[in-house]
Amino acid sequence: MLKPGATIGILGGGQLGRMLALAAARLGLQCHVYCPEPDSPAFDVVRRSTQADYDDETALEAFAAGVDVVTYEFENVPAHTAAFLSARKPVLPNPKVLATTQDRLTEKEFVNSLGIPTAPFVPVATAAELARAAESIGKPSILKTRRFGYDGKGQTKLMPDTDPASALKEVGDAPSILEGFVPFEREVSVIAARAADGRVVCYDVTENEHGDHILRRSTVPAAITPAVAAEAVRIAGRIATALDYVGVLAVELFVVGTPGGHRVLVNEIAPRVHNSGHWTLDGASISQFEQHIRAIAGWPLAEPVRHGRRVEMRNLIGREIEDFAQWLTVPGATVHLYGKGGWRHGRKMGHVTRIYED
Amino acid sequence: MLKPGATIGILGGGQLGRMLALAAARLGLQCHVYCPEPDSPAFDVVRRSTQADYDDETALEAFAAGVDVVTYEFENVPAHTAAFLSARKPVLPNPKVLATTQDRLTEKEFVNSLGIPTAPFVPVATAAELARAAESIGKPSILKTRRFGYDGKGQTKLMPDTDPASALKEVGDAPSILEGFVPFEREVSVIAARAADGRVVCYDVTENEHGDHILRRSTVPAAITPAVAAEAVRIAGRIATALDYVGVLAVELFVVGTPGGHRVLVNEIAPRVHNSGHWTLDGASISQFEQHIRAIAGWPLAEPVRHGRRVEMRNLIGREIEDFAQWLTVPGATVHLYGKGGWRHGRKMGHVTRIYED
Repeated sequence: MLKPGATIGILGGGQLGRMLALAAARLGLQCHVYCPEPDSPAFDVVRRSTQADYDDETALEAFAAGVDVVTYEFENVPAHTAAFLSARKPVLPNPKVLATTQDRLTEKEFVNSLGIPTAPFVPVATAAELARAAESIGKPSILKTRRFGYDGKGQTKLMPDTDPASALKEVGDAPSILEGFVPFEREVSVIAARAADGRVVCYDVTENEHGDHILRRSTVPAAITPAVAAEAVRIAGRIATALDYVGVLAVELFVVGTPGGHRVLVNEIAPRVHNSGHWTLDGASISQFEQHIRAIAGWPLAEPVRHGRRVEMRNLIGREIEDFAQWLTVPGATVHLYGKGGWRHGRKMGHVTRIYED
Repeated sequence: MLKPGATIGILGGGQLGRMLALAAARLGLQCHVYCPEPDSPAFDVVRRSTQADYDDETALEAFAAGVDVVTYEFENVPAHTAAFLSARKPVLPNPKVLATTQDRLTEKEFVNSLGIPTAPFVPVATAAELARAAESIGKPSILKTRRFGYDGKGQTKLMPDTDPASALKEVGDAPSILEGFVPFEREVSVIAARAADGRVVCYDVTENEHGDHILRRSTVPAAITPAVAAEAVRIAGRIATALDYVGVLAVELFVVGTPGGHRVLVNEIAPRVHNSGHWTLDGASISQFEQHIRAIAGWPLAEPVRHGRRVEMRNLIGREIEDFAQWLTVPGATVHLYGKGGWRHGRKMGHVTRIYED
């Protein structure tokens, strides 16, 4: 168990790193943020930060020497960075989790190996493979690069008239998977925290709405039956346990209506705090960020209590930031701005949480 | 209205400055903390800080040049520091407030001038004056230095057998007041925020329990009638308005039972965020710290919504910090540690908030 005053190293200086550092501060823990980009939002809320590339071993060495544990705010931490740091200080969650989740193929095979369903998928690397895959998966379907995809980047829809070669070209001719189109009723997510002792604590299942592949709005509780919610939570717990995970992870799921009732499919695992858990900052007694900090610090997890009957989180994306002031005076609303210099299309600039007692 | 990204200068680097900086960060505002003490808790949560004396004009000049507005976390900001900064950047709340509240005599005369009652008091500077004052005020009564008193420092009780000269010696022979003993039923406080446009927003009246003159526990709502609560809130609003105050202030009051009903007397004004308002961090949709930041940034105040039916805040004082971990797993409890190096008797090390839904 880290003592108050200990220092947590955070790889990545975006809004997630920033909110992790703010949560650590509440617990009397210090943070050192490491990020290649100048003006990273998380730099503003810590005393010590390093602006250096992830392959700068001199900088990594100094960073490791000054921290007690290392964590990360994003899943694309380079493997050699994680290995370099792991040899010097505990890195949590364990970097082997990254190897599983950085590759869509590995991730889906891992999920299926637990007996948990996903959308059907086939790995493809050439136009010929893609053409064959389309025959088994059907169209419309979605071509997704195995690595480095987020917020809709690295994916394209395969329609009946799409040429396989040009579809592959659209995702940079990168190794990919073709994924069957899931006619889901709802997208939901479970934010799960797992402690080193194996204890798992999940937040209420959250319902998510996307636009242009970017999360727009989360609502909790999700409009699903208790049985579906329990199944989603059970799946998240199984995944966290199978990964021997320490920290917070998010499992995104599809809820599909079938003649026999609702089914839940795993869409994606995010081995980190997650945008769909931002509502916990204001809508629960303990946030996902604090749960993550507690877990990696070896502190006990909390049993969070949700506020209100319903909580809604709305992202402020791109130009929406210009109208943030309208939310300041809405009763029960809380405004979070991430301190990013300028907006651009699709950039997450802040969010607003609203708690409804009705 | 400050733009997101603007910088707030904070004089004082204790836990109040720290929590102000954390609240500013949520709104995308940066903070620069100025404090003479090394290892000030607020230094940990900001990118820029200055460790320098309050009369170091070179440091103050550089500080003023780098911030858009200046505020403070403590009422004993030296007058020349406030004047020096005021000549360069807006200082809020207006430093003239400090002149009123730094002196118990001036403060009480100001409160009485608004027609608001206080305990009876008489200024004393010599043993002869104290002896005469004791005849009019009665004994037991309390001798308090006019300046620099807090948490019971600079005061002593005058009992029937107390020698005036030795009592004065106990408070350092400083200019003082003799204050009548108030047989109060409860101590309560009102945390009021006032915006530049004159709008005042108060939190629910909080009931406070002290031990050794240090706040131990706050509970909200206070166990008082709606009429008494309304009177306390009205008094806080009148004081804020009369001071042309911008920011958060706390008014501490005594509730006294009389044959004709309850009376409310003002005990003290704190021109800053206040320990008895810490419950608002977890027990309300917007905290006292954010209200203060909004006010001094020229942003609109929020209309905070309280969580739970009852909220309790308990300070972790001195050695109590060693047992902080017991609170981590209490459902609905939130733990705040201030990042102070070591505990000592009477030092505020953190606090715990609990929200009760029953």
